Amino acid sequence: MHFEPLQYSNKTLCIIDQTLLPQRYEHIELPTLESVIEAIKSLRVRGAPAIGICAAYGVLVGLDEAAPDSLEAAQKFIARCIQELADSRPTAVNLFWALKRMEKIAEKEYTSIERLRAALEMEAIAIHEEDKKLCLAIGDNGAPIIQEGTGVLTHCNAGGLATSGYGTALAVMFRAHELGTPFEVYADETRPLLQGARLTAWELQQAGIPVTLICDSMAAQVMREGRIQSVIVGADRVAANGDAANKIGTYGVALLAKAHNIPFYVAVPCSTIDPETPEGAAIPIEQRDPAEVRHFLQAQSAPEEVAVYNPAFDVTPAELITGIITDRGILYPPFSEAIAGLKL
Amino acid sequence: MHFEPLQYSNKTLCIIDQTLLPQRYEHIELPTLESVIEAIKSLRVRGAPAIGICAAYGVLVGLDEAAPDSLEAAQKFIARCIQELADSRPTAVNLFWALKRMEKIAEKEYTSIERLRAALEMEAIAIHEEDKKLCLAIGDNGAPIIQEGTGVLTHCNAGGLATSGYGTALAVMFRAHELGTPFEVYADETRPLLQGARLTAWELQQAGIPVTLICDSMAAQVMREGRIQSVIVGADRVAANGDAANKIGTYGVALLAKAHNIPFYVAVPCSTIDPETPEGAAIPIEQRDPAEVRHFLQAQSAPEEVAVYNPAFDVTPAELITGIITDRGILYPPFSEAIAGLKL
Repeated sequence: MHFEPLQYSNKTLCIIDQTLLPQRYEHIELPTLESVIEAIKSLRVRGAPAIGICAAYGVLVGLDEAAPDSLEAAQKFIARCIQELADSRPTAVNLFWALKRMEKIAEKEYTSIERLRAALEMEAIAIHEEDKKLCLAIGDNGAPIIQEGTGVLTHCNAGGLATSGYGTALAVMFRAHELGTPFEVYADETRPLLQGARLTAWELQQAGIPVTLICDSMAAQVMREGRIQSVIVGADRVAANGDAANKIGTYGVALLAKAHNIPFYVAVPCSTIDPETPEGAAIPIEQRDPAEVRHFLQAQSAPEEVAVYNPAFDVTPAELITGIITDRGILYPPFSEAIAGLKL
Repeated sequence: MHFEPLQYSNKTLCIIDQTLLPQRYEHIELPTLESVIEAIKSLRVRGAPAIGICAAYGVLVGLDEAAPDSLEAAQKFIARCIQELADSRPTAVNLFWALKRMEKIAEKEYTSIERLRAALEMEAIAIHEEDKKLCLAIGDNGAPIIQEGTGVLTHCNAGGLATSGYGTALAVMFRAHELGTPFEVYADETRPLLQGARLTAWELQQAGIPVTLICDSMAAQVMREGRIQSVIVGADRVAANGDAANKIGTYGVALLAKAHNIPFYVAVPCSTIDPETPEGAAIPIEQRDPAEVRHFLQAQSAPEEVAVYNPAFDVTPAELITGIITDRGILYPPFSEAIAGLKL
């Protein structure tokens, strides 16, 4: 990939503002804790792994901004900072996983604020670097799924922008493309926030992979026409039984895939699998602003006062999932056993 | 209903410009054949029955505009006029049905252009008036399907705006509401042209029926949450075996309804059933401008040059349809027999 969704250097956190794509490709600096939280809430940075990385760096941003004058004050501040970051979005487990790693580092004993800060920075960079390796491994493990001359459908954006730069579901496609497999992708536009149209279509174009954009409502028809041989999506949290929370609409795509006998894969780093969430019903689903549905980008598309239901995610039950492509190989049913075997 | 989507008086055809709703409620005059065709193509007037009515009046608009100087020239002109109107959109059968009625009248023998014109005007008005009665009958026949306290999902706009003013799928809801049945409607926004968000939500609000707007990708989730007890949609053409062409996304909704054991109804006047189309595969599906998927109104939602697949309709196979609500009662499977029994 030719872009870095998140960069941290000289104590400065920069992200690509994903709300501006594809019209504008712009990096913005996040100089304060508040700006980091705002960026996560408003989806300037999005995608489970990217949110985790951003939050980890967010702890450093917050610490540098607050500049506490004692080690004790610093550790207290960091605990509060982690809590605020954890409250920014509820569904993606990588957020809590990354913050827990930062918390463990923060709770150790240090002889100075500088040493504490250095340890936190090392950990955040490690989370970031590890994600790059995990994404490459997901790509390697999943690439053989994509057969020559086939069509792959994806929903939302589980691409480089959602991670450190290589993606999860899209990593599989990037890798298959690099290995020389010819195939094409159908990208659901993914209302309400159009991550498929704005981000996935853009990323695949950048990589030179043939991509056709469709409205979410067209997925059934393209499947029926025989254009799709596999569905590959990302996830924001996978439960211990294999149930997978992902962008709203994923569950419907999984049902449609089943009705057309098309295999349905979820691609995630193991950090997205939460053994402490027993099943999908236990995953909190974020409800978002009705204005997202009443508007289409800047344009109003519905009566201003109409009632709206706007869940950001849905849960695809394990029985609709053919396989979970991870950095440690592809998991197959029964997922409870496969996931327990990972000893996460 | 408190609005007339089409009005014809003093030789003037006026329509509500549906592309402006819900922000602006505006009537526009269609003074030329070209403007009538443009209005149909660009969906200023839309919905199978409304297109048929508009095209019937369009013949008169064309005739008045051309002002031919002999009866022979008038009849020749009308034949050409009907051909041009028939070419405006390919899927809705009511367009061809209405134009065939006008053609039959035009081909009779007359003693003057005035008498020919009067006969054509009577026929167009008859098509319009009949539609009003048919819609009321559909409403009466379908209303008992909606049980107290249930949720109904609909896709696209099969409302008053799609007809002479009372709708097909929405007629069932309007009538149930008039009869005092409390229920609520979930309206799919219906990308790419958002007829659900712009028109259905607006119409139901006008009628005082509780409506919740969702993105198309949320239908599966609201079904899973038990919010939906029936799906009712319109259709642009029903084949002799019961296969029904309707707005893209309908087929997917039907599959999702089946997966959740929710009954799925299609509401149409008998003029939408085409005994000469044996099955869905014989229905031509209009492909529309890729720009509709890359944009909405002012907003660009995808890279400008991305490939797009944009079928305007899909076909729901008869086996996914619980019943076809018509002005002559509800048809149940086997639909081939039920439709043959109508002797259309």
